[in-house]
Amino acid sequence: MISLNFENLVSVTKKHGLSLAEIKKDSEKIPKLLEQIKKRNQGFYEILDDRETVKKIATFAKKIKGKYKSIVVLGIGGSALGTICLQQSLKHCFENELKNSKTRENTPKLYVLDNIDPQLISEIEDIIDYGKTLFIVVTKSGTTPETLSQYFYFRDKIRTKSSHKLNAHFVFITDRQKGRLRQIANEEKITTFEIPENVGGRFSVLTTVGLLPAALIGINIGKLIEGAKTMCKKFFSKNFTENLPYQIATIQYLLNKKGKTINVLMPYSQKLIRFADWYRQLLAESIGKKLNNKGKEIFAGITPINALGVTDQHSQLQLYSEGPNDKLIIFIEVGAYANKKFAKLEIPSAFMGKKITFHHLLQTEKNATVQALTQTNRPNITLKINQIDENTLGELFLLFEASIAFLGELFDINAYDQPGVELSKTLTKKYLAQN
Amino acid sequence: MISLNFENLVSVTKKHGLSLAEIKKDSEKIPKLLEQIKKRNQGFYEILDDRETVKKIATFAKKIKGKYKSIVVLGIGGSALGTICLQQSLKHCFENELKNSKTRENTPKLYVLDNIDPQLISEIEDIIDYGKTLFIVVTKSGTTPETLSQYFYFRDKIRTKSSHKLNAHFVFITDRQKGRLRQIANEEKITTFEIPENVGGRFSVLTTVGLLPAALIGINIGKLIEGAKTMCKKFFSKNFTENLPYQIATIQYLLNKKGKTINVLMPYSQKLIRFADWYRQLLAESIGKKLNNKGKEIFAGITPINALGVTDQHSQLQLYSEGPNDKLIIFIEVGAYANKKFAKLEIPSAFMGKKITFHHLLQTEKNATVQALTQTNRPNITLKINQIDENTLGELFLLFEASIAFLGELFDINAYDQPGVELSKTLTKKYLAQN
Repeated sequence: MISLNFENLVSVTKKHGLSLAEIKKDSEKIPKLLEQIKKRNQGFYEILDDRETVKKIATFAKKIKGKYKSIVVLGIGGSALGTICLQQSLKHCFENELKNSKTRENTPKLYVLDNIDPQLISEIEDIIDYGKTLFIVVTKSGTTPETLSQYFYFRDKIRTKSSHKLNAHFVFITDRQKGRLRQIANEEKITTFEIPENVGGRFSVLTTVGLLPAALIGINIGKLIEGAKTMCKKFFSKNFTENLPYQIATIQYLLNKKGKTINVLMPYSQKLIRFADWYRQLLAESIGKKLNNKGKEIFAGITPINALGVTDQHSQLQLYSEGPNDKLIIFIEVGAYANKKFAKLEIPSAFMGKKITFHHLLQTEKNATVQALTQTNRPNITLKINQIDENTLGELFLLFEASIAFLGELFDINAYDQPGVELSKTLTKKYLAQN
Repeated sequence: MISLNFENLVSVTKKHGLSLAEIKKDSEKIPKLLEQIKKRNQGFYEILDDRETVKKIATFAKKIKGKYKSIVVLGIGGSALGTICLQQSLKHCFENELKNSKTRENTPKLYVLDNIDPQLISEIEDIIDYGKTLFIVVTKSGTTPETLSQYFYFRDKIRTKSSHKLNAHFVFITDRQKGRLRQIANEEKITTFEIPENVGGRFSVLTTVGLLPAALIGINIGKLIEGAKTMCKKFFSKNFTENLPYQIATIQYLLNKKGKTINVLMPYSQKLIRFADWYRQLLAESIGKKLNNKGKEIFAGITPINALGVTDQHSQLQLYSEGPNDKLIIFIEVGAYANKKFAKLEIPSAFMGKKITFHHLLQTEKNATVQALTQTNRPNITLKINQIDENTLGELFLLFEASIAFLGELFDINAYDQPGVELSKTLTKKYLAQN
């Protein structure tokens, strides 16, 4: 269960916050916005009904169980950030360093190579055994140069270092028909999972892109989907009070008009540090648009910032509280832990003269920071989640994806394309051809 | 050697960029600014002459060599970010997962616990052996609650799980005289290293705060200091062309006046991903200030963004090129590698019909992105460094610290305090006392 508390928007001065009336003013437009969203024919919520894919993944996971010690995802942007977040949020904080004998389940270690820095690509070799490694190559278009270059590099490695065929070491996630990766899959008889055509990279965490690697490291993907479905119902509610995605979107939109051009996502949980990275792409790429739906130049956009409580109190809070008042801070508060022992972890009484828990200190600092920012007229809202598990993470993914869908309609832009990266891609091709 | 290329500021339209005349206009003020900086009596450059401390660290490192398998730093903000950066930049990409036998030198593994999330604190236990662990507790004031609570927690663990005395497992880095940690050090006879009083946390990476953990994991701290000293000469040059820190500061300042309120630091190197985090604190806390030197409310501040090339081309570039034109992008380009094999790492010709290196693809994408942003009138500058090693990293640290010193004087603010975090701290104390 997720709830949203936006009362601090009312507490700060009208110039920097929003009254309840302002927040609710346009909510009779929800049905119309939902219609517009449906016309976009985007698949990020439709996929939640795709039981076939979840079954196919489960079957594959069962088939390869115990075969691999390492899984290496080759992918970048939307092909990487969701997977990184799933691992960070739902597994042990030091998952890949656990000895198999100890706390670790017998699942493979997962690595996501989302850059082409040669040092990164070269050094992974020092910690994996090629003979026991499965590479998951993820590119929706099947043409992403960063990912394809990695594929060809590791393909040669496997050919020289493994006695098995290529298709024992590679799985592809790509478009059903198009692209170079699909061709290679056909030639080499490589198992391939599909990304639906109408789901963009940054909306793809609950497709095979995120679900396959998650399932292979022991994450319950059924529950992820279940959580997302719970939120999906709220997404399609015409009622302001129920429609959490709309609430967030309208707040972001209205505050943007009041000069809050930056949105900070600051979870008070080490486990959600990569969730903020995932959201950073979603907000930046979806809403940062030169043209509106009528083709007029508007240079829309909200600049996302990833932050972490309590850590960034000692790095960013000074700016948030005294710098330009140009930010909306979105806090995420986690009430409890899937494993109860964490809630009970105590700070010895020698510290304060009485025993308190780390959880209590963390929550107290969060409350103090929220209060301090409110007192200095810095608009902020808090999302409360009960605990971090597959269900709530599924809810969170869909909450933010759906809020982006609303935000796109409010800004009157296409939230699903990314025309602004084409020039850089074209120039890369041109430069590479010249040399 | 580091060089700065700012010609793209001239290439973009005057509204969004700067002419050479604008950039150089105020450079006759450099001597006056340097005088003002000296009057601040800040130690971040003076410490470079402190040979005693470097010797003391070297002696300590020698004494404990081979004794510990893990080093755990307890610290937050400026007590953590520099150390995290040093490890990430100068060690293997998967340092802590290397088997001792293989690529790894026989140095301890280093962990930095910069949060009080109970899961993080609890789970470190699953990968360390308390009997073979050295905790370095870092808090300048000696009173930071996050760090002290961690200390008391692990103190109890050591007492029950190690046969040795406390002072075989703890080292403190704190103020010479003040604070609770200093008291404990005296009581428990714990080896303690000092942070000079006139060096703030975010400027402390080249004090014992960064140098001690760095030395213990095999980083050449003498060369770090050497590099910083090279940059220090440029810092005190009255000549615009030589004074790299001033060049960056004046560009940031002048563009801020033209509405570029956000600065993105985007190194094209996986090794510098945490350097951008380190800089994020430095810029945010130093320049985000409500009051100027005359006590007038100005709400100064530049919002820093950490980015990474090529990765964030697939996450943030769309916003940078089509969203609001409110950013200065500071690229870092790395020309070569300390280990030449990385420069030679090849992408098989099957990919493009000819062999190219990953380095070439990375540089080509960087050039294309710079060109694309320039063509869309997005102001950007590029810092070029030859390779990442102790020397250049030392240069980079001092370059940015010194540029912040200039920036503080240009904004007419105190760049060395952080009054805006006090309210949150006070409220935390109040709430803790209530419960």
